[in-house]
Amino acid sequence: LRSPTTAAPAELLDRLRETSPLVQCLTNTVVANVTANALLALGAAPAMVDLPDEAGPMARTASAVLVNLGTPAPHQRTAMQEAAGAAASAGTPWVLDPVAVGSLPVRTTLAHELLGIGPTVVRGNPSEILALATGGAGGRGVDSTARVEDAEDAALALAHGLGAVVAVSGPVDVVTDGRRTARIGHGHELLTQMTGGGCALGAVIAAYAGLGTHPFDATVAAVATYTLAAEQAAEDAGGPGSFGVALLDRLASLEPAMLGDQLRITLS
Amino acid sequence: LRSPTTAAPAELLDRLRETSPLVQCLTNTVVANVTANALLALGAAPAMVDLPDEAGPMARTASAVLVNLGTPAPHQRTAMQEAAGAAASAGTPWVLDPVAVGSLPVRTTLAHELLGIGPTVVRGNPSEILALATGGAGGRGVDSTARVEDAEDAALALAHGLGAVVAVSGPVDVVTDGRRTARIGHGHELLTQMTGGGCALGAVIAAYAGLGTHPFDATVAAVATYTLAAEQAAEDAGGPGSFGVALLDRLASLEPAMLGDQLRITLS
Amino acid sequence: LRSPTTAAPAELLDRLRETSPLVQCLTNTVVANVTANALLALGAAPAMVDLPDEAGPMARTASAVLVNLGTPAPHQRTAMQEAAGAAASAGTPWVLDPVAVGSLPVRTTLAHELLGIGPTVVRGNPSEILALATGGAGGRGVDSTARVEDAEDAALALAHGLGAVVAVSGPVDVVTDGRRTARIGHGHELLTQMTGGGCALGAVIAAYAGLGTHPFDATVAAVATYTLAAEQAAEDAGGPGSFGVALLDRLASLEPAMLGDQLRITLS
Repeated sequence: LRSPTTAAPAELLDRLRETSPLVQCLTNTVVANVTANALLALGAAPAMVDLPDEAGPMARTASAVLVNLGTPAPHQRTAMQEAAGAAASAGTPWVLDPVAVGSLPVRTTLAHELLGIGPTVVRGNPSEILALATGGAGGRGVDSTARVEDAEDAALALAHGLGAVVAVSGPVDVVTDGRRTARIGHGHELLTQMTGGGCALGAVIAAYAGLGTHPFDATVAAVATYTLAAEQAAEDAGGPGSFGVALLDRLASLEPAMLGDQLRITLS
Repeated sequence: LRSPTTAAPAELLDRLRETSPLVQCLTNTVVANVTANALLALGAAPAMVDLPDEAGPMARTASAVLVNLGTPAPHQRTAMQEAAGAAASAGTPWVLDPVAVGSLPVRTTLAHELLGIGPTVVRGNPSEILALATGGAGGRGVDSTARVEDAEDAALALAHGLGAVVAVSGPVDVVTDGRRTARIGHGHELLTQMTGGGCALGAVIAAYAGLGTHPFDATVAAVATYTLAAEQAAEDAGGPGSFGVALLDRLASLEPAMLGDQLRITLS
Repeated sequence: LRSPTTAAPAELLDRLRETSPLVQCLTNTVVANVTANALLALGAAPAMVDLPDEAGPMARTASAVLVNLGTPAPHQRTAMQEAAGAAASAGTPWVLDPVAVGSLPVRTTLAHELLGIGPTVVRGNPSEILALATGGAGGRGVDSTARVEDAEDAALALAHGLGAVVAVSGPVDVVTDGRRTARIGHGHELLTQMTGGGCALGAVIAAYAGLGTHPFDATVAAVATYTLAAEQAAEDAGGPGSFGVALLDRLASLEPAMLGDQLRITLS
């Protein structure tokens, strides 16, 4: 396995644009639109297939799968287990985004069932990662009440226990596979003032995981690329509405050459 | 109870930005995204929790709850009754937005069941308020075929009967608690040319109702603030697409100082 | 029946703005928002009514109905059959958009059941039309892997067999009723880089079909008008995000006078 370097995100963005990975998304109704648009803008191909009896077959042929627990309606919960199981058995990488787990019982039970199937990557905010790793109560609604620093030990433990990559979103994003940890210092506060800012990142991680590279490298590249686009979008924005528009434009216009030495990634 | 003055909206926007009320939304799939984004832009915290067994617990801890009947899927209908019941018993203010009630049978039956639980505020267009109060046939699809003036008596009767605040949306918005009536002369026609223009207002009313002020003051402040932002957004817009973007930017940039004496609110 | 001329789109846009046809949409959660917004921008009235026991009554009174198979949840599948049946028996024109039919079993079975009810218009990408007409495997996720040229014979056969109009989307759009074929050379590649670019067109076709003109004329006018607006929007856009915003602005600002002789429509 190649260890990540600051050059890798540029190579991986090139590869993503060339191969257009097919990313199956089972996600919440609030952010489905912006999630599909973020994937399209970056160069990936979204397939929002979340029905029982379709989710499994799709997961066997997709490049990667995203399972996001934001508003898991009953039929979607069935489809999520079907998709995760099919992905695991077919070797399709899949990403779990455990939105608001903790005190909300339906999604918390579902998240633990899905963890048992073995996600490739888990992405969440600090409260969500703490809730998954330690059984904590979670945040306030969908917002984190914990800081990234508070969740680092939990992320390491979760990554170890699952044999997965764990990404914790915050002012500085942390990505760990239990052995290596990357800290990525891009992004912008406006990303927290539009709904789906974090959820769309989960889909972008899936797109990179679908390139066949190591999931740690894929996740670091996805987070660095997406948060750099957000940083650029903030320059164009007059508020959260125009920021959401600019984020899509910037994901589309981002050049691999921008993802070189100036990326703020530290590894430990 | 403090009676509303034109100063109150400024104070309440300050309080909203400081305390960031957690607004649980059970709403339709068409406008879920813009609803969450409007709340975030203004400074509130949306939680789109609409599952049975989660909706009740969330309603007991949320600052306020929105129940919008735009596309009530079967599992959401169960969750709406659960949330309304939990909100009522826990003292959480909750807003009912009876989208397209009248001739459509499923939501009309549901709306009457929910009215029985005692909403804090009912927000609708004139046809919807007439349909709720008098058993009228409702509008044309989701559009009102009646004028605000036609629905004022119905709004008063509904407010009296329920002990609730009723807000009727139109060129001049009317808010009444059955004793006092406010007429608010802001807004813009573009608000009717984007989907969710009215639905997002329902969520904003919930955010203000979650501040702990009197529901009449809260509703007047919410309507005045939201429609003033719409008026400002129309200045930036080249059509309904850019209006939707500008509305979010303006909700975020609106300063309490703009909500002073120049607000066009008349009380009777 | 009047045969289409390049003048007809201008007349029909005038009529659409005057009469504001009520378009019932049963569509997927990813694109519901942009679909409703496209209809509103153009001047039509969306009604997103997709519940069993409501979908049928609505279809009897709506100007037209759209059935889009992007994410057909169980309750929506029931409602789709109810709406299509009611539309057919009431003489309401209805449009079928068979998103991603082919290898995905649930929607493929549903699409064939709905074809049996007799849609007025079928709109799809080349792979979807091939899958419906010949039992092919469909495209890659929601993307076409076939070219419009490859699907022309299938479109003709499908139109003949159903007695319906078939519209195939691509760089040059093809519309046929089995006897006449129109090729429409407008649009822009950015339309494929936003989710819902094709789905919203299905709704716009329904709006035109609701004007009471011949479905072939209606579909040609809808495709020409929508793709011309997209072409104009691309001039304003810096990427797929701003394109989506500009598309709504351009649908609203499009003047019938722009739909004259310069339209690139060829008939055979």
